[in-house]
Amino acid sequence: MSLPVCEEILLREEAGVLHLTLNRPQVRNAMNLKLVNEVMATFDAIADRSDIRAVVLRGADANFCAGGDIKDMSRAREAASQNDGEDPFFVLNRAFGRMITKANYAPQVVITLLEGAVLGGGFGLACISDIAIADINAQFGLPETSLGLPPAQIAPFVVNRVGLTQARRLVLTGARFKGEEAKALGVVHFTTDSPEAMDELLAQQLKQIKRCAPLANRVTKELILSVGQVEHETLLDKAAQQFSTAVQGDEGREGTQAFVEKRAASWAQ
Amino acid sequence: MSLPVCEEILLREEAGVLHLTLNRPQVRNAMNLKLVNEVMATFDAIADRSDIRAVVLRGADANFCAGGDIKDMSRAREAASQNDGEDPFFVLNRAFGRMITKANYAPQVVITLLEGAVLGGGFGLACISDIAIADINAQFGLPETSLGLPPAQIAPFVVNRVGLTQARRLVLTGARFKGEEAKALGVVHFTTDSPEAMDELLAQQLKQIKRCAPLANRVTKELILSVGQVEHETLLDKAAQQFSTAVQGDEGREGTQAFVEKRAASWAQ
Amino acid sequence: MSLPVCEEILLREEAGVLHLTLNRPQVRNAMNLKLVNEVMATFDAIADRSDIRAVVLRGADANFCAGGDIKDMSRAREAASQNDGEDPFFVLNRAFGRMITKANYAPQVVITLLEGAVLGGGFGLACISDIAIADINAQFGLPETSLGLPPAQIAPFVVNRVGLTQARRLVLTGARFKGEEAKALGVVHFTTDSPEAMDELLAQQLKQIKRCAPLANRVTKELILSVGQVEHETLLDKAAQQFSTAVQGDEGREGTQAFVEKRAASWAQ
Repeated sequence: MSLPVCEEILLREEAGVLHLTLNRPQVRNAMNLKLVNEVMATFDAIADRSDIRAVVLRGADANFCAGGDIKDMSRAREAASQNDGEDPFFVLNRAFGRMITKANYAPQVVITLLEGAVLGGGFGLACISDIAIADINAQFGLPETSLGLPPAQIAPFVVNRVGLTQARRLVLTGARFKGEEAKALGVVHFTTDSPEAMDELLAQQLKQIKRCAPLANRVTKELILSVGQVEHETLLDKAAQQFSTAVQGDEGREGTQAFVEKRAASWAQ
Repeated sequence: MSLPVCEEILLREEAGVLHLTLNRPQVRNAMNLKLVNEVMATFDAIADRSDIRAVVLRGADANFCAGGDIKDMSRAREAASQNDGEDPFFVLNRAFGRMITKANYAPQVVITLLEGAVLGGGFGLACISDIAIADINAQFGLPETSLGLPPAQIAPFVVNRVGLTQARRLVLTGARFKGEEAKALGVVHFTTDSPEAMDELLAQQLKQIKRCAPLANRVTKELILSVGQVEHETLLDKAAQQFSTAVQGDEGREGTQAFVEKRAASWAQ
Repeated sequence: MSLPVCEEILLREEAGVLHLTLNRPQVRNAMNLKLVNEVMATFDAIADRSDIRAVVLRGADANFCAGGDIKDMSRAREAASQNDGEDPFFVLNRAFGRMITKANYAPQVVITLLEGAVLGGGFGLACISDIAIADINAQFGLPETSLGLPPAQIAPFVVNRVGLTQARRLVLTGARFKGEEAKALGVVHFTTDSPEAMDELLAQQLKQIKRCAPLANRVTKELILSVGQVEHETLLDKAAQQFSTAVQGDEGREGTQAFVEKRAASWAQ
């Protein structure tokens, strides 16, 4: 499936990596429904693309994402007043949760580069990345409750990311914090202090990812996202079957042979 | 509903905050069944009070709580010997778990101020607070197994607080530790080194809480406590409905309008 | 039940502690099926031995364990080619998960001493220990995906140990790291910088464990491993019954009496 034509995001494929840039810099890349749908269409389009090893998510002009676009809310308010049977606020809000869920389950390794505003829905996206790199001056927070709203589609991903103990404090106080604290809380894995350092760390992480076999990574990501969702013994039984398939497949034979021959495997560039 | 008349705890309502002080300083605020019942009655009484934004839990005379009162155990032992059909040890122990569960689900933001002894059941209460502030010299620990008893009503809350990895070590070794380690383990969010610093941090946290909308906070707290209890998609569907209700309600209209007008919302004092 | 006669592991019982040493130093204690079965037989043999308070797991010659033995894989490959109806890769892989699960649920306190290689299945074993002590130069990692294989029986234990946020990064990048990072990630509880310091810390932890009552520790370990597996209220009901049994049993009477009399309990040596 080819990549969708998009207006609110930029897509660039290069060396097995899809770079996805939220591109509404005039509103610090706040997400409207169109952007949300484009992100989902992109993940749908690459679902079976095992040649794409990683997706790098960032925002244009040194902001990751300021959350949901308030203008969309006004549009929903108008639609709501027309009473056409469907609740436009429900539809709008629920789309955010579907997008974050889809990104969470992407078979590729998802990397977020977090600069400037990482707020609300932007915070939610950060919470599902396999590798999150934050600039030390990035601004994290969940401002929803101070606007009289629950962080409805985001809070569950925050709990899964940082645990209940910190999540309950963050959402109930609307706390703001920067990169180093985001790392201490477990929102992100790494911090960097310049765009150059961020690029360098990204390059290093991509190199490591490419040393891992594409199909093995895909199977492994699905496996770890199933922990706690599938009964323990059932999960281990299924995993042992996947192991058996892998070891007898192309990757398993090449990988173990390369190991014995002390050379790089074919997929490691 | 008015606040209950209590003998083992002190209650003081001030500026939208309920201060609840465990008041048995002669036994480092060890909890007897009467105290446990008074704490539960208090949380029942304020369940629908959205004007109370936070509950601040502390102990009298620079100890939070030394755990369960051993004299109650003796009383239970006498009652058990009379064979009246009900197991008084079960009743006594189970009441602790009900109290901690009720405090966990309180719709208000629950803050614990932890000084001196934070042991056994006191440790359990610390584990459900939305914001926990510990004095650096506070003494944390679960001494139960060294007394030949399981920390029966407490251990589950410890696991939910700090995760299985640390919980298994703490309960199986009866480890004692102070404020800084409590923060590193994730039992508490903040440490302070004097009563004045603790008061100051409390004031700051209360100010932040009051910037969040009362009903939004209530809905959000219920939401995050449901993560992992309710199936993911079902939870997000319900949350989107709550979002829709909120955005069309008084708080949502006031909050977004205040944001656009760059002024404080009506609930932010 | 007496301890099994073993060829791939060393067993030594001393002062209420079973020392279990993985003993295949020529392959950095990589595990073959025979070793895996011997470890399981050992845990089966001591399941009812409440006189054994702790199991100390280590590897011979300054390596903990380099993972699964690749030669076993070759043997499985031959067996697979003979088509006898059973999948030898499934059987081999699944045995690892059964061993880790059995060690996880051992009623004794399980301590791992982690030096040198702590890779793959060795990493998995580290993830279920109640107390993990790592040398600062120990090498941790999950190299499976770089061999074209999923860490099938290990990944679930890694998620339960360090949480999804770090687990997803570790498995999808094949990251290698040492003792201090293992502590920061929550894989281990303590680090030491020499064999002597490790021995000393071990002695101290064993002393603390012996201050806890044998049966109380057994009941408590079962309880905390049930959190999240058994419905909350049901779990607390069962725990209150266990508390009642304990307080009326030998340990509960001795422990509380010793506390009142300010002397060590009978089990504390």
